[in-house]
Amino acid sequence: MDALTRIERALEVSVGRLETKSGPPKLSAAIRYAVFPGGARVRPRLCLAVARACGDDEPQVTDAAAVSIELMHCASLVHDDLPCFDNADTRRGKPSVHAAYGECEAVLVGDAMIVMAFETLARTIALVPSRVPGLIFNLTQATGAPSGIIAGQAWECETEINLSEYHRSKTGALFAAATAAGALAAGANPDRWRILGEKIGEAYQVADDIQDIMADPKTWGKPCGQDEARGRPNALREFGLDGAAKRLKQLLGAAIESIPECDGADELRAIIMAEAQRFMPKEAMAHAAA
Amino acid sequence: MDALTRIERALEVSVGRLETKSGPPKLSAAIRYAVFPGGARVRPRLCLAVARACGDDEPQVTDAAAVSIELMHCASLVHDDLPCFDNADTRRGKPSVHAAYGECEAVLVGDAMIVMAFETLARTIALVPSRVPGLIFNLTQATGAPSGIIAGQAWECETEINLSEYHRSKTGALFAAATAAGALAAGANPDRWRILGEKIGEAYQVADDIQDIMADPKTWGKPCGQDEARGRPNALREFGLDGAAKRLKQLLGAAIESIPECDGADELRAIIMAEAQRFMPKEAMAHAAA
Repeated sequence: MDALTRIERALEVSVGRLETKSGPPKLSAAIRYAVFPGGARVRPRLCLAVARACGDDEPQVTDAAAVSIELMHCASLVHDDLPCFDNADTRRGKPSVHAAYGECEAVLVGDAMIVMAFETLARTIALVPSRVPGLIFNLTQATGAPSGIIAGQAWECETEINLSEYHRSKTGALFAAATAAGALAAGANPDRWRILGEKIGEAYQVADDIQDIMADPKTWGKPCGQDEARGRPNALREFGLDGAAKRLKQLLGAAIESIPECDGADELRAIIMAEAQRFMPKEAMAHAAA
Repeated sequence: MDALTRIERALEVSVGRLETKSGPPKLSAAIRYAVFPGGARVRPRLCLAVARACGDDEPQVTDAAAVSIELMHCASLVHDDLPCFDNADTRRGKPSVHAAYGECEAVLVGDAMIVMAFETLARTIALVPSRVPGLIFNLTQATGAPSGIIAGQAWECETEINLSEYHRSKTGALFAAATAAGALAAGANPDRWRILGEKIGEAYQVADDIQDIMADPKTWGKPCGQDEARGRPNALREFGLDGAAKRLKQLLGAAIESIPECDGADELRAIIMAEAQRFMPKEAMAHAAA
């Protein structure tokens, strides 16, 4: 089974579990809407790729790890799109959750998905009691205060912004947690793998900054120009296209270099390069190659 | 150390952990504001009382269990007060979190506190690996979809409301989780204790309905008349003061009866009676006694 099929199936199990006769039907429908169809599933794919490189000897735990990371990512998108934040009417090329289901439902969808992420992990504890607690703790550090993605979003509400902390927590934290989770799920030491996620997270942030200014909103699936409209820092505005493209290339190189020697390291490098070509803006890749 | 002091100290440890130099300062300040000073801490007190009745042989795990329940409760208050829900400007006699810190910060405070609740539990896994996974799972079932407090709040956004599911999930779920958590933390079977929480939760809901109509908003600490304004079901409006008071008395009796025979059962009964007299409206108690 290819990685994407495996991720979609595992997500389906978690989302399907909510669709009982006794629960509020609009809530479960809105959660399904927020999860499917997905974006690129970059974070769970990284999680799976690292788990495979580390042996993937407990595939159900790996699946739960990948799903927990993706659910947290989807939850953060739903809340970041809310009127009080980005006020984005579209996401992944369709109406955002609050545009489709109302603001109340969107707040609750995000809340419920945070809980779902922990539930998905908790359900596998009996399988490998020695690994899952580490996965749960890893997820709390990547998402909560003071340095997870929620803290990252909160930096946008502060009067003075700590730029490196802002980027590290808003984007880097969940990428680093994704690669660490892949290692943890396979019983490997996560520390060296975390660096890989951090580098990819930084690269992804630069790519996103470039897209925010240069992409066609129709193909990108969400509104452009958000950084300027919200006064947020943006690498392309700061360093120009040449500078941003160089930075992107550097980070990608550092990510590839950080991969520890292990069975499957070659496969992982290939996955990351393919993934990079997909999420990196074409203009920037051409500049970086020149 | 009395129960309330123990709870406040344990909450202080969890909240204090977020106040690092690197995190966003407004977020951690707003989280502190949402947790302190607290309300009656009814749920964590019940959790502690049950743990004591079951031996409380791992007090750090009991503390984490009580804190996780209270953090979830505080998170739900912050989100329920948001403009898109109750639009409540006051809570516990002071401005609500969104009134004091803005709507964005209030959304993130709730999100971060959900994660904190799981983090607090996850930090104690190494102490008693056999008990904490059950506590984490218990918390997911009490808070998420399809039947936790988030689902309870979501019933208010549905076109058709399932009344018994609405009350069970909106109020009962976290009370039941609180008593179950006390048992789980002490290594006891949670099933019989869960019923106690359910009965108290139902009683609390009736008491809250009466307060919503009869209380003085100055002493109650939050706006009154919310049920009528929002078209929500209310036991006082439905059954009258006599009917609601009788129902309250019945539920309290059922709660006391449900306490399993064990060391400390007498102490627990006394705590519940005292707690009941505190949270039950005086008018209703007088009616029920008549």
